[in-house]
This record gives sequence, structure tokens and C-alpha cells, in this order.
Amino acid sequence: MTEQPGNFFEDFEVGGTLLHATPRTITTGDTALYTALTGSRFALHSADTFAQACGLPGSPIDDVLVFHIVFGKTVPDVSLNAIANLGYADGRFGVPVYPGDTLKTVSQVLGKRELSNGKAGVVWVRSTGTNQRDEMVLEYVRWVMVNKRDPASPAPEAQVPDLPEVVDAGSLQVPADLDLTGYDAVASGDGRGWNAYSVGEKIDHVDGMAIEEAEHQMATRLYQNTAKVHFDLHRASETRFGKRIIYGGHIISLARALSFTGLANACRIVGLNGGRHTAPTFAGDTVYAWSEIVEKPEIGARNDLGAVRIRTVATKNHPCDDFPDKGEEGRDHPDKVLDLDYWALMPRL
Amino acid sequence: MTEQPGNFFEDFEVGGTLLHATPRTITTGDTALYTALTGSRFALHSADTFAQACGLPGSPIDDVLVFHIVFGKTVPDVSLNAIANLGYADGRFGVPVYPGDTLKTVSQVLGKRELSNGKAGVVWVRSTGTNQRDEMVLEYVRWVMVNKRDPASPAPEAQVPDLPEVVDAGSLQVPADLDLTGYDAVASGDGRGWNAYSVGEKIDHVDGMAIEEAEHQMATRLYQNTAKVHFDLHRASETRFGKRIIYGGHIISLARALSFTGLANACRIVGLNGGRHTAPTFAGDTVYAWSEIVEKPEIGARNDLGAVRIRTVATKNHPCDDFPDKGEEGRDHPDKVLDLDYWALMPRL
Amino acid sequence: MTEQPGNFFEDFEVGGTLLHATPRTITTGDTALYTALTGSRFALHSADTFAQACGLPGSPIDDVLVFHIVFGKTVPDVSLNAIANLGYADGRFGVPVYPGDTLKTVSQVLGKRELSNGKAGVVWVRSTGTNQRDEMVLEYVRWVMVNKRDPASPAPEAQVPDLPEVVDAGSLQVPADLDLTGYDAVASGDGRGWNAYSVGEKIDHVDGMAIEEAEHQMATRLYQNTAKVHFDLHRASETRFGKRIIYGGHIISLARALSFTGLANACRIVGLNGGRHTAPTFAGDTVYAWSEIVEKPEIGARNDLGAVRIRTVATKNHPCDDFPDKGEEGRDHPDKVLDLDYWALMPRL
Repeated sequence: MTEQPGNFFEDFEVGGTLLHATPRTITTGDTALYTALTGSRFALHSADTFAQACGLPGSPIDDVLVFHIVFGKTVPDVSLNAIANLGYADGRFGVPVYPGDTLKTVSQVLGKRELSNGKAGVVWVRSTGTNQRDEMVLEYVRWVMVNKRDPASPAPEAQVPDLPEVVDAGSLQVPADLDLTGYDAVASGDGRGWNAYSVGEKIDHVDGMAIEEAEHQMATRLYQNTAKVHFDLHRASETRFGKRIIYGGHIISLARALSFTGLANACRIVGLNGGRHTAPTFAGDTVYAWSEIVEKPEIGARNDLGAVRIRTVATKNHPCDDFPDKGEEGRDHPDKVLDLDYWALMPRL
Repeated sequence: MTEQPGNFFEDFEVGGTLLHATPRTITTGDTALYTALTGSRFALHSADTFAQACGLPGSPIDDVLVFHIVFGKTVPDVSLNAIANLGYADGRFGVPVYPGDTLKTVSQVLGKRELSNGKAGVVWVRSTGTNQRDEMVLEYVRWVMVNKRDPASPAPEAQVPDLPEVVDAGSLQVPADLDLTGYDAVASGDGRGWNAYSVGEKIDHVDGMAIEEAEHQMATRLYQNTAKVHFDLHRASETRFGKRIIYGGHIISLARALSFTGLANACRIVGLNGGRHTAPTFAGDTVYAWSEIVEKPEIGARNDLGAVRIRTVATKNHPCDDFPDKGEEGRDHPDKVLDLDYWALMPRL
Repeated sequence: MTEQPGNFFEDFEVGGTLLHATPRTITTGDTALYTALTGSRFALHSADTFAQACGLPGSPIDDVLVFHIVFGKTVPDVSLNAIANLGYADGRFGVPVYPGDTLKTVSQVLGKRELSNGKAGVVWVRSTGTNQRDEMVLEYVRWVMVNKRDPASPAPEAQVPDLPEVVDAGSLQVPADLDLTGYDAVASGDGRGWNAYSVGEKIDHVDGMAIEEAEHQMATRLYQNTAKVHFDLHRASETRFGKRIIYGGHIISLARALSFTGLANACRIVGLNGGRHTAPTFAGDTVYAWSEIVEKPEIGARNDLGAVRIRTVATKNHPCDDFPDKGEEGRDHPDKVLDLDYWALMPRL
């Protein structure tokens, strides 16, 4: 018996639901590991006292860690046979996650379209992570390129979902009880908040972080993400890269952690507008990042906080004081590895 | 002063008791690290909600992690001067371990026999791990080859314990309160339980997991296992291998985690019939595994669960779709690194 | 915008206060990682039951881990532009830290002196770590060599603090409730306590521990220590070493963990007399250590415990059975990487 080949392009039915396995209780152990693997320093996630001064019962789990846990559950059903993880859209964070909460994930198939070569296709799914009270903690759409089981099988009618380019700021959820009125900018490490940033401003996050094989493997396993390309060195040695490919989500984590230097008060991620892994990364690469402030709308009538739309670009082996981005003809700079567009909340400092 | 050379063959007295040091409180931090180091996905150990639906107060600590903690304490007294860890037998898991429990280990010397070359001997010990209420959590026998302090010392009378080839299924302990009647096979990731497997069936666990130096060192230190061969690169560079040898128990962990693909509902390990580390592994090796269903007895009058005797073989750098095992003349395939024989409980699906 | 260049020599004002960012709640997750990264086995920090038998509510956080957390917060303000971390003095541990406590750090600038070359200077700071009840958990002085922003800026008047060579034993704080009367030397792993050691005695800690890049990066990030030299491989490849330098504090952790073999009952660190990182370490180095008993005063009228002043020397790739130390002309042996002088409490066994 050979086990679980995963779903192929033919297996996805538009409108169908995928009940993903492996519910997961998140603990302070996960938080410690996440800190050790990323070096994240956002005060809201670092200190219970800081979170309590912001109205919360204690430090919530890092938003990107929540993303990884929710995402990891989808891998066995969605992307075990994926050739590429093409993009994210329409992501919204719901209630904060606290140590002791148990998360699970369900996905709906939104669309599929066969590639012109007939060998593979693109599948769109909306994944929803919920806690043990069935409260939504995160939902987002992603699309992946998946192999066909049989290249000779007929192409289905293309069904491509209509996705927003940006999550409507009015639909972003501010955690209940979150109150940044008395935000302690000394403890958070930066005096600049929502008031201080200008649309169009670019920020070099300066620091670089090298990645080791043990680190990305531990991170990816922590999220119970089982995609073979990250772990199987023996088989990877026969691929065109000849080595393991780092889980793209680990680059999101590193870019977000690096962005502390310059965006220390982007304290809560509330939306995911889009994201592309523009090139693979490998052990030995050093990741750098820079960000751009894209929009900064008010949130309702709140005067303690506002939203900031941030575009973060990560590179490999290329410090970002020159803000590498797109070159002529709109092509991504070859050192770019991530182009992420998200919404965060900031205190009105 | 040179410290603690450990026990040599002459130091073991048959019938004697070894009170091992370093009691250890296990926490959710250990569970997070174990997940990060192995990628384990068994639902019972992953989610408190799942465990509670099975009648338990919350997720118990992974059985193999319990094994490592109990085992680690024996190393300074039993195997610091060991040449080889030869085998395991007659292992039984007792009460489940939960975060916050504190474990300690005591061993009894069951037997010893000098090798014909007069330089070393085999020592058998039965080790018993207990929690802070002195309840047994695990007991097992292992035998190791230990150097003599003085090759000229006289050979003791050989005393070899009589060990069962298989732990009697009737003696296996089902955790109190464990009730798999309403077992959620969607959450566990596989619809196949005790009913679905046939004796003699072989299962390829498909995935491969590469091991890095940092990973096996972190795992082995987590268990406070101090055997020098796993950590001392400087001295290892002068040995025949020229490098650190990976703790054999880490291979057990990886094989068990890989076995999720195909045996996701082997949810609780209850017995250890035997185990041999058939070849050393080193950083850079990719581990694969396959299993065989050896027996599947009922457990008393229970109709919610049954026992399955599983033999799991792990290899290095050799995918297991050809089920590598013993070759001509009964010799282990050279790529085999582990041959493990254990009892697990499964829901009657 | 380029972010946070950190403080330069000119920026430090003697008498000034630095309120460091990033308060940090410490959890059992941190303890698990610390065990995995160091292999520490001190019973007081390993088992709640053992700590409770010593009068404490549970296992306190390892003293060296507390040091790293308190220290890490000072890096962005004190040593981001440091050329070298020159030394420590006058360190005292206060109340024990328990899982759930939140630590923060404040520093006072004690002195500064420009180097004769005019390019950099030495800055002395006293850093104080406190818990969420503003109780002191650790205070110590360190001095660092920091670059000047502008080599042409005038030299300030030299102000060098007067620091004690040894912390007065009478000023050491024994944790309230700590009572070692019934100390369990079987559980702690060694029958020798305060009574058993002689001043001048040297102890070879025997074991060696190799360090991997992933390990020191994870340790240093766990402490939210952001010094670039530990993480930025791309830039490091252009330095004289051509690689990342390991955080000196990680060597302190390894030396302390190795010292268990020989000093298992040095159960609580209470003072830090001095410390020098005498040479850098790099991934692939194997660390060894030896210690010398320097003094062993009584502590007040207590007859359950006494103090021991310990000098621990760590080396790289050099087993310590020859106690490498200073050679002719008082120069450190080239394989020495750490010379640490501290106070610990020991039961009167």
C-alpha cells in the first residue's frame, strides 16, 4: 500500500469543501519557538503586561504564526502535489488567538483553470481557520498550481473567482477590547505611530537574517506543514535545484520580524491583500526587507488607532538600502523573494 | 579532579538498583519542540479538544517523547561508556503523562555477560519511569555493550535474563478514561482504524525527512541525554566515523512521525516488543520508513478500540516503496537503520 | 528612511538613563528551548518537585537564561555599534524569575572614555532587570567598546567608574523561602556540596559540546538580542572572519551547562564578579570547560547552604584535562574563549 498521494487537479470540485485534519492547540511553547526562529520583538506579542495595558487578557499569538498554523493544515489536501504557491488575496484576521486555543481549518474550492499545456492547472481555495469556539481567527484565499493526475483528462470549464485587489479597510476587524489609548511607545521601542508615517514612504529594515536548514525545517514542522520539498534532501538532490526549498511562509515570518526596525508599532496584522513568493530561497541565504506605506485610512471613529497598508519586499543576499523592486518591463528584481501587501493597526502616535 | 567517568562493566551488580538523577517536569514547551523536531501530527497529541473528545483531560505528552525523557536519565549511569545500545524488550506504557508532570527513572540490573574478547560485556537493565505520584508511566528493558574498566578483571558468571519476544497483549494498559467511541476520523486525518488493517499488510510511509546536526543535538539535549558521541565534534573527528553519531532514539521519533502517513490512527503506543538500531545515522541523511501489521488482537471486551502490533523499519537515503528489510542470510539491508516492534491502540473504524 | 543606527560613543551621557524596549514574558516554552540548546541538567531548574522540596513554588527560570533576557534588551541601545563586549562586573541576582513573569531592563550610563586612536571609546553601563512587580531580578555592569559617529568629535573628559573586583559575599541575595536543608543529592546527581570542595581545587568538566549555526542563532533570537554580527551571513562574508560570530553569552550558557559534571549542586547563581570573552567562537567549534573553586564563605548564620566563588574557563576545540589558562606573560591561552567569575549557592553536603 502506498499512502496518500494528495489531491491532483482533477480532484478539486468547485464549490466543494475540504475538512482539513490535525486540529492544533497553540501554547506558549509555540511562541517561544517562534521567537527563537524569527527574533520577533513586537511588544504586544512579547509581554503579557504590554498586551494587558492594551486591553487584552494577555499576549495573543503572533499573527503570522496563526497564519502558518491555519495554512499548514491545508497542505495535505491542497498543495501536496503543488508545483507552485502562486498567491494570496482577501485575507482577514478575526479574533486573536491565545495560548491554549485550538485551531482547525476548512477550505472551500473557489475555482480552477487548466493550464494551456494540459499538464497542470490552477486551483483557488478560501481557507478559514477557527478556534475551539468556532470563531474565525483567519480567512484568506490562495491559489496554487497543481499537477494533473492524468495529462489526458479533459480540461474543465475555467472558473476563476473574482478577488479584490485590496481588502476593504471598512471590513477589517479590530479585536474586541483592544484599546491603544495608553500605548507605551518606550516599551514598544519606537515613538512613531500612525500619525508619523506618510503614504509613499519607504523604509529600509536594515538588518539581515541568514537561514539554516535546521531552522526552516523546524519552523515548517512546527506548523505541521508536510510539503516534501522542504524536508526530503535525498529526493531533492535529484531536482533542478539539488536541494531543499525553504517554505515561503518562513520568509514572510522573517520579513515581518525584520520590519520591527522601522515599523515597531504595526502591532496587529488585520488583513492580507496579496502576496507573491517571487523566487525560492535556500539555506545559506541572508534575508533583508524593506517596506512602503501604501495607504493609511482611519478606522471608524477611533482615535486610538488607525490602519496602515504596508507593502513589504524581502530579498536574498541583497541589503535593501536601494529598495530593490521591479526593473524594466515590470519584472521583479532577481534578488526579490517576497512581495507582501497587508493591513496592520497602529496606535495614533 | 576529573569528573564522573560513568559506570564500567565491572560496576554493574546483578540485582542492584540505580537511582537516576535529574527529575524533569514536562511542559507544553517540550511538546512544541517535539513537534518542531519531528513534525508529528497525531491528533491525540496535537489538540486538547481532540483528546477531550476521547475522554482524556487534555493532550497527553507524545509517547515517544516520554520514552526519551525516561531513557535520558539512565544514560549517565548506564551507557556513558557504552559501545553500543543493543536492544529493547518488554516495554509497557502506564499512565499518560500530561504537561506539568514530573518524571524520574529508576533501573534494576537484570543481568550481565562478558564478551569472549574480555574487553567489554553486555549489561541488561529494566528502567522504570514514574510521575510525581509514583505512578508508572513507562518500563522497559534494554541491553548495552559496556567497556570494562580493566580488561584483566575476571569475567563474572554470565546471567542473562529471560525476556519475552512479545509483550503479552493482555498485559497492555489502556489509559483510564480513554474512550474512542466517538473518534473523529476527519480530524485525525484518516478513515482507517483497527478494522481496516490486515495482518501482514505493509505500508510505505512515503515521506522522507533529512536530519541536521542542530536538530539531533537539540532533540537529544531536550531529553538531557548526555552521551558524548552525539555532541563532541572535536573528539568525534578522530573516530572511525569522523563525525557525531545521531542518537538512535531520534530515528525512532522520526520513523513514528513519518508513520502518520498510513497509520494516523495508531493513536497511543502501549507496548515496546523490541527494537534494534541496525546502522548509525549522521547529519545529512534522509530518513524514510515503512511498517508491517504483525498482529491485531482485541483488547478485552472493548469495542471502541483494539491493539495493533506494528513493525516499523526505518532507512537512510532509501525511499521505502520496495520495503527494504532483510536480505539473503537474514542480514539487514545496509540502508536499514531501525527495526522497531511495538503495540499501539487504534479506534475500531 | 534608514532605520535605527543605534547609539554611538557621542550619544552616551554619563548619568543618563536608557529605558530599554521590549518587555518579555518568560514561559516554560523558553525553559524547554534553553534545555534543548544547552542540555542543562541542574535539578532546581529541571523539576518543579525538586524546587518545591527546596521551598520554592516551582522551578525558577535558569539564572543564565534570565541574564540573557535582561541583557538582550540592552543591545539596541548599548551595543548595536559595539566593536567588542569588554567585560562584566558587580552583578547580583535578585528575586527568582518564574514562568509567567515579565522582565524589562533599564540601564544607567556609569562612565565613558575615548580611546587614544580617537575612533571609538569605552562605555560603562549598569543594567537592571526587573519583573512585573518592579522587583530586581538581576543587575550588573558591563563595558563595551563603541564606535564614534564622527572621529573628529572632541574627546569627552574620561569618567571611569570604580568597580569592585569581587561582589561582596555579604551582599548576595538568597531567594526568600529557599531552604536546602533536605536537599536530595540523589536527584541532583552528585553527593558533593559546599563541604566537599576545597579552595584552589580545579575541576575538569570533561564533556564537549559542538555549536551549530542554527543553535546560536536560535538562542540569540530567543533572547531578542539583535546584534547583526550573529545573523547577517551576507555582510559577515566580507569581514575579517568571513562568518558569523557566536554571541558570547551562548558560550556562558554552554560552559555553565557543562559544569554540571563536577558542580551539579552549584544550584543558584547569585553574583557575577567578572567575565571576559577572550576569543570569538564560530559554528563548528566544540566548547569544553573547567572550573576553579576560588572562595567558599559562609552565608550569614545559615547552615543549609553556603556560597562558592567559581571561576569557569571555557575553551574551543581543546579538552580541559590540562586546565588551559594563562601562559607566559599572563596572556590567555589561545584556545580560551571565556573567563567567568561568579558566585553560586550550594547545599552544605
